[in-house]
Amino acid sequence: MPVSHEAVFYHNRGMEPLALSRRQSREADRLAIERYGFSGLVLMENAGRGCVDVLERLGIGGTVVIVCGKGNNAGDGFVMARHLAIRGYACNVLLASPPEELQGDAATNFAILRHCGIPIASVFERFAELPEPGATRRGGSFVPPTLDSSAAWIVDALLGTGALGEPRPPFDAVIDWINTHSLAARVLAVDLPSGLDCDTGQPALHTVRADHTCTFGAAKIGFQQPAAKRYLGIVHVCDIGLPQRLFEAARLS
Amino acid sequence: MPVSHEAVFYHNRGMEPLALSRRQSREADRLAIERYGFSGLVLMENAGRGCVDVLERLGIGGTVVIVCGKGNNAGDGFVMARHLAIRGYACNVLLASPPEELQGDAATNFAILRHCGIPIASVFERFAELPEPGATRRGGSFVPPTLDSSAAWIVDALLGTGALGEPRPPFDAVIDWINTHSLAARVLAVDLPSGLDCDTGQPALHTVRADHTCTFGAAKIGFQQPAAKRYLGIVHVCDIGLPQRLFEAARLS
Repeated sequence: MPVSHEAVFYHNRGMEPLALSRRQSREADRLAIERYGFSGLVLMENAGRGCVDVLERLGIGGTVVIVCGKGNNAGDGFVMARHLAIRGYACNVLLASPPEELQGDAATNFAILRHCGIPIASVFERFAELPEPGATRRGGSFVPPTLDSSAAWIVDALLGTGALGEPRPPFDAVIDWINTHSLAARVLAVDLPSGLDCDTGQPALHTVRADHTCTFGAAKIGFQQPAAKRYLGIVHVCDIGLPQRLFEAARLS
Repeated sequence: MPVSHEAVFYHNRGMEPLALSRRQSREADRLAIERYGFSGLVLMENAGRGCVDVLERLGIGGTVVIVCGKGNNAGDGFVMARHLAIRGYACNVLLASPPEELQGDAATNFAILRHCGIPIASVFERFAELPEPGATRRGGSFVPPTLDSSAAWIVDALLGTGALGEPRPPFDAVIDWINTHSLAARVLAVDLPSGLDCDTGQPALHTVRADHTCTFGAAKIGFQQPAAKRYLGIVHVCDIGLPQRLFEAARLS
C-alpha cells in the first residue's frame, strides 16, 4: 500500500490499490490505446474531468489558475479549464510554452479551449537574442505573472510521470513561482508534482510542493518514499475510465 | 424554463438553462465536432460518465441492468457499464441488437467493453424463417430475460433524440419489458425515454416510463409538454464537456 490510507480517495472502490513505475504507466497507456481501443483524447478527458471532480469535493472558493507546460500534462490542464468553466467556476490558464509546440491530444484540447472563451495568458517569452551556435540555451524564459488576488487554487500541469531529471528552463522558474505562491492559494498537482521522480520519489532541485496530487488510474511506486510525501500532499487516485485488470496487466509487464 | 426547477440538477450552474429541438441538438453535435474539434468518443464518454455520476448521487443499491439498442444511445450505455464496474458496482448489459450492427463510436465502446469482463447478454434472436419478399418484418425478435432479483436500476439505452415515430420491433417489446419491471427496479432513461418524441413531447404507443431521465447538454423542447412528464420522471441535464455558448449557438440555428 503505497500511500497513507486516510489520505487517498480510491475511486476504484473495493479493489486492491496498486502502484506502477514509469515504465508500467507507459505500458498501461499502450495497452489502453493499442489493445483495448481507447482514444488518447478519452483518457485525457477523464483525467481532466476527474481532477475537477476532486477540486469540487475539496471546495473551490475562488479562481483556479492552471499553469500548463506543453505535454499531455498540459492537455489535462486544458480539459480542466473547460470543465471548470462549464460548471461555473472562474479559471484562467497560464501557458508556459509556445502554443505552436503543443502536439497531439494537448494541441487538440488547446484548440477546443480557444473556442470556449476562457482567459489564456502566455507566461513564456522567447529569448530576444539568438543563442550562440552550439549553445544549450534556447527557447525562451518564464515571465512571472502577478497571481490573481482571487486565486484559490494553482494547478501544476507542467510535467507528468514521463519527465526525467531536472526540470529544464523555463519550467524550473515556473515551479519556483508556484512554490512562492503556495501560501496564497492551494496547489493541486496533475499526475504528480512537477520535478518529482515517479520511480524513486526523489525531488529535483526545483519541485512543486503540492497540497494535493491527482494521479491517474494507479499510484506511482515513488509515492511511498518518505522524501516524496512533502511534495505530494494528499494523493487522489482518479479513475480515467480504464478497468482495474488493465493496470494489473501493466504491473506484471 | 422547460422542466420543473426542483427536479432538475443543472450542472451548468449560474447559466441560463435552455431547451433544444431535435434539429438543434443535431446542430450542437455538428458544431462540437466540426467547428470546435471535439471527438464523438469524448462526448459519448462524458455522457455515460455523467449518467453514472447521477446514479451514484441517487444511490445504487443493487445491480444496474443496462438495456442497449444499437445507436449512440447504446454507446452511452456501454460507457456507463464500464464506469459502473470501475467504481465497483455490479452491472450487466442486455444487448437488444445484433452486435455486428453496432457502428462508429458505439461499436468502439462495445469492443472496449468486451475487454472489461462485464456480463453482456444478447436479448435478440434472429427470426428463424426468412421474411417473405417485400415483407417489412425482418431482423429478429426480443427474447425477454428474467430480471436479476438484485436489480436496483434498469437503464433505457435504446433510442435517443434522433429517433422518430413508433419504436420498431424488437424495441417496442423491449420497452414493454422495461415498463413491466418498473416496480422491481427504478428506471433511468439515457437522453430521453425511448418512444418519447423530443420535439412534441408526445409518447409513442410503446414508450418507456422513466423515474429519471439524464439528458445531455441541454433539455429538449418537448420536455415541457404536460404529456411528457409521466414518462420523463425527474430530468437531469448532464454536461458533456461542451461550453454553454455552443448550445446557445445551436439554439439560434
